[in-house]
Amino acid sequence: MNAQTDISQLDVGFDVPAVPGMDEADIQTPALVLDLDALERNIRKMGDYAKAHGMRHRVHGKMHKSVDIAKLQEKLGGAVGVCCQKVSEAEVFVRGGIKDVLISNQVRDAAKIDRLAQLPKLGSRIIVCVDDLANVADLSVAAERHDTELEVFVEVDCGAGRCGVTTTPAVIEIAKAVEAADGLKFSGIQAYQGAMQHLDTYEARQEKLDIAIAQVKDAVEGLKAEGLTCDLVSGGGTGSYYFEANSGVYNELQCGSYAFMDADYGRILDKDGKRIDQGEWENAFFLLTQVMSHAKADKAICDAGLKAQSVDSGLPFIFGRDDVEYIKCSDEHGVIADPAGALKVGEKLRLVPGHCDPTANVHDWYVGVRGGKVETLWPVSARGKAY
Amino acid sequence: MNAQTDISQLDVGFDVPAVPGMDEADIQTPALVLDLDALERNIRKMGDYAKAHGMRHRVHGKMHKSVDIAKLQEKLGGAVGVCCQKVSEAEVFVRGGIKDVLISNQVRDAAKIDRLAQLPKLGSRIIVCVDDLANVADLSVAAERHDTELEVFVEVDCGAGRCGVTTTPAVIEIAKAVEAADGLKFSGIQAYQGAMQHLDTYEARQEKLDIAIAQVKDAVEGLKAEGLTCDLVSGGGTGSYYFEANSGVYNELQCGSYAFMDADYGRILDKDGKRIDQGEWENAFFLLTQVMSHAKADKAICDAGLKAQSVDSGLPFIFGRDDVEYIKCSDEHGVIADPAGALKVGEKLRLVPGHCDPTANVHDWYVGVRGGKVETLWPVSARGKAY
Repeated sequence: MNAQTDISQLDVGFDVPAVPGMDEADIQTPALVLDLDALERNIRKMGDYAKAHGMRHRVHGKMHKSVDIAKLQEKLGGAVGVCCQKVSEAEVFVRGGIKDVLISNQVRDAAKIDRLAQLPKLGSRIIVCVDDLANVADLSVAAERHDTELEVFVEVDCGAGRCGVTTTPAVIEIAKAVEAADGLKFSGIQAYQGAMQHLDTYEARQEKLDIAIAQVKDAVEGLKAEGLTCDLVSGGGTGSYYFEANSGVYNELQCGSYAFMDADYGRILDKDGKRIDQGEWENAFFLLTQVMSHAKADKAICDAGLKAQSVDSGLPFIFGRDDVEYIKCSDEHGVIADPAGALKVGEKLRLVPGHCDPTANVHDWYVGVRGGKVETLWPVSARGKAY
Repeated sequence: MNAQTDISQLDVGFDVPAVPGMDEADIQTPALVLDLDALERNIRKMGDYAKAHGMRHRVHGKMHKSVDIAKLQEKLGGAVGVCCQKVSEAEVFVRGGIKDVLISNQVRDAAKIDRLAQLPKLGSRIIVCVDDLANVADLSVAAERHDTELEVFVEVDCGAGRCGVTTTPAVIEIAKAVEAADGLKFSGIQAYQGAMQHLDTYEARQEKLDIAIAQVKDAVEGLKAEGLTCDLVSGGGTGSYYFEANSGVYNELQCGSYAFMDADYGRILDKDGKRIDQGEWENAFFLLTQVMSHAKADKAICDAGLKAQSVDSGLPFIFGRDDVEYIKCSDEHGVIADPAGALKVGEKLRLVPGHCDPTANVHDWYVGVRGGKVETLWPVSARGKAY
């Protein structure tokens, strides 16, 4: 604890990991720390790219689940709004003042559809994805019930292998049903190739995206031949946005992870064979942890385990250190190999988590840091909103 | 949606997945569902075992993070209190009325130590673990500052390879320092062999526990020779409690997962070579999910992905079904192999998550179900309390 920190500040509720003005070293761990300078540079850079390529940028709010960060992306990066994955997330973003919200996913449950159909009443544009005719009918009934309009994207599965239809006739059939349905408006295509975003090389990713782009072009042309216009063709992630931006068919990006970076995305390679976290983007998102035991000479135990991060995409790395390595993760502990005994009990380290999205989802707060000092706290506004 | 459910019930805040009286089929997914009958049988069974073997049972609250479940374990299972891993969790349990709380972990940060030292003022017994002399001094200063008494266990690393000292002289040195320190009381030994709990066979687990028991006996005898009495010798988990209970040296168990069961624990084998989730314990903890897309004939997509569960210990299995299999997990989706096209959009399934502790930690509510109807909602009281 830094001598300047008044411990009594922490007595207020015990439920925040930091207070503004505090040194980074005094943040209660484990806690999510954002390097605000790096975050702002990432946001500006992607915004500039989208603008230069005539693309709308609908930032993926499911990544950070934060109204504050979405608004920063609107302000600094020219974002047109957000996409998210669940009705409960959309409710948070709409109530937080985001005016253009796409649920880039299917909504099939009757109660959820009912909640969705009420959302346009709050003054935001609401778009949802469909891949099934029965869903079109259900959405229409709900929109009619609430006297609202829901915009609809037909979802094309262009390689991710999850939701979405795979053929142009199927796209046309659903789009026509949407156009014919009361309370619904056909607004375009959702085509996110999620399965290729983490392929190591630029060329491997390009190969997959070339296939996706051809498929999306075919669908857009097929729709046009039937008199149906795609206002928006939406997709693209941190590992692919340059392909969609130069495709001639997409006009909206949906990038998320670029703003934070994580260990798994960071290791993919750019066109020049360089890791994307060493030039293209900066690490702005950290899990601050403290060494809490060093009873064995060559191992330090830290306080960030499975309840402070998701390890689905691998273990975190320790930012700025190559002498120590996070080697094992259990519920509440991380084991750090410290062969030279470099770490001291009480020392704090910045971890770069393997996967930013599900890691953010276990925390209540982002601690925004600039120049070693806590500047702000932002709630993870849609934390746990999975329904 | 069942015709009996009034959708307007769900309008209240949108922030609960269910309301009492509702059919299980109408719960908003993804949601944690507890089979209350199975939960109560598990709790009673472990309570009866502990009583029959003269063991105190300090249930592990870090597993469920629920004050309501801890109180049920006291009521039905004779639990003496809880253990947990963080000061923030202990604060929740103490405020919730649990009178005997062990933090089975080290607390090293100055602000956290200060919060810990205040907790006895709320009327509960507070015990904390140490593995380092410097920590003894810090804890003593804080207890003196707040005029409270902290009880202390010396942590023995009996094979888990995390915190804890490994030799009897080291145990004695720390125990003596505790006894000599103002505001602290030496109360015993923490010796949890976490690394063996998930070994497949009973014999493999027994081999590791025999080593641990010998180590703990040596420490207890060494302390006795120095005039230091261990009131409590505490440890044991769902994969080992019968070894500690028959050891002649442990007198307190710390089991957690037995109450819920999960896929990873469930597959370890009992003395007769039978999975422990097929006789010894029942699955009481489920992640309810809904099929939300079936655009491909052989694959169903469900709404429970990485933000609704932790997959650190493997993917979930689908309870009561061997015709379909959960084969892939991404942020918001699960892919279910459905070779015969058995599943319908809208259908709900009970998943048994790979690992109960970090899965509970991403949810806000437990939905308690009995006989197909929602009986109660319990908050995950200490969710996110990792600091």
